[in-house]
Amino acid sequence: MTESTRFRVTFVLGGARSGKSRFAENVALQSGLDRHYLATSQIYDDEMRERVALHREQRGEHWTTHEEPMALVETLAGIQSDDRVILVDCLTLWVTNLMMAERDVSLESARLIDSLAAGAGHFIFVSNEVGLGIVPDNRMARQFRDHAGRLHQMLAAKADDVFFIAAGLPLKMKG
Amino acid sequence: MTESTRFRVTFVLGGARSGKSRFAENVALQSGLDRHYLATSQIYDDEMRERVALHREQRGEHWTTHEEPMALVETLAGIQSDDRVILVDCLTLWVTNLMMAERDVSLESARLIDSLAAGAGHFIFVSNEVGLGIVPDNRMARQFRDHAGRLHQMLAAKADDVFFIAAGLPLKMKG
Amino acid sequence: MTESTRFRVTFVLGGARSGKSRFAENVALQSGLDRHYLATSQIYDDEMRERVALHREQRGEHWTTHEEPMALVETLAGIQSDDRVILVDCLTLWVTNLMMAERDVSLESARLIDSLAAGAGHFIFVSNEVGLGIVPDNRMARQFRDHAGRLHQMLAAKADDVFFIAAGLPLKMKG
Repeated sequence: MTESTRFRVTFVLGGARSGKSRFAENVALQSGLDRHYLATSQIYDDEMRERVALHREQRGEHWTTHEEPMALVETLAGIQSDDRVILVDCLTLWVTNLMMAERDVSLESARLIDSLAAGAGHFIFVSNEVGLGIVPDNRMARQFRDHAGRLHQMLAAKADDVFFIAAGLPLKMKG
Repeated sequence: MTESTRFRVTFVLGGARSGKSRFAENVALQSGLDRHYLATSQIYDDEMRERVALHREQRGEHWTTHEEPMALVETLAGIQSDDRVILVDCLTLWVTNLMMAERDVSLESARLIDSLAAGAGHFIFVSNEVGLGIVPDNRMARQFRDHAGRLHQMLAAKADDVFFIAAGLPLKMKG
Repeated sequence: MTESTRFRVTFVLGGARSGKSRFAENVALQSGLDRHYLATSQIYDDEMRERVALHREQRGEHWTTHEEPMALVETLAGIQSDDRVILVDCLTLWVTNLMMAERDVSLESARLIDSLAAGAGHFIFVSNEVGLGIVPDNRMARQFRDHAGRLHQMLAAKADDVFFIAAGLPLKMKG
């Protein structure tokens, strides 16, 4: 009889270019588990292509990469395992993709949170804090901000560890 | 001769959809005092109507609600009492209302801060941090950001407790 | 033989009107060293002129002021000394100035970081966190955000102390 490893959820929140992906990669490395990277990005243009390539280069070897813009719950269920850490980068892009596809973001967010009850191994979610600037002029940006904020609250409530990253440095908010 | 309860000021600062109102409501609940809610919102459109209705529903029973978009000092003076906690939600809307009415925000902010010297019971102020994004293009948004930031600094200096909320989680900054 | 004072770097990061300059000035005061102020601002219009004048007034006496919008490395090298504290306010304006002049910001940022290896006295860098709002619509603003974020990460990695300021209150992130 083998002892099952306890499932663990880490949530890494931060601003643009805050070093949150780098921090999350170090958390994954320190877990000692088999590293999987789940990219939610959809490449629309050269700027995005450069960002993705840069992230991949910085991440280095020793990662198995998966790409899935929307079916996050199904993909996590398919690849999760007691001996794996899965870094999901990032949730705000996932929310953007769902909105672009006119999916029900509240429903999908609730499904993601519910799915954590049956997780295995270690999940690390990276997301952008986007609610600390001036109220955006356009309604879609406000809806995006609302969706992201609500998802962050739900995820932080479930997560074992929550870090807020600024200038590459972590503030531990939970755990 | 009855012993007077010490007046207390709590300041809850956070981004959009950060869970700051929910956190402030819990602070009010834990005070054990009679709960009053002072809404500064003015309803201009359906989007605002929905947000206000949603907040009211989430807040639940056991609150006496007051609505006042601008005369915050007078309203607080009229309803404050040693056995009451008053949750003011939120200061950024109050600043917006003052600006729309072309009132002197610096003067009104100073009056609010001065009024705290004669407060009773427990005041909880909720406000949006709006200064952590890109500099806004239009001058009015920059002025709003300046007014909000200066008010936050003055209030934080006077408050007994200051919390910064992100993803529903508090960082205690003072107290 | 005199004992050389150890070179020290403090990094003060915060939002607009967060009180970060005031906090940095207090750090300078407490250092007990001869205070020098290095302003990176370029005055384009009356709004900027007012901000600069207000900052200077708040700062008070006992400062030697230097103005340099771009040649930060050379200016620091020229004025640094074991008995001086130099407050650089602020790095985001420096990045803006470099971008306006079509200079290579990545290269200049790397030069600044490298120059810290040969610093003397105490340097205090103030900068705006600008990455916590909605993704800006225009590409230049996104590039600015990227440059600022990368510089902040590099500087935070080298700094002895890093503070994040909100509502005038410091969160110590390092040191």
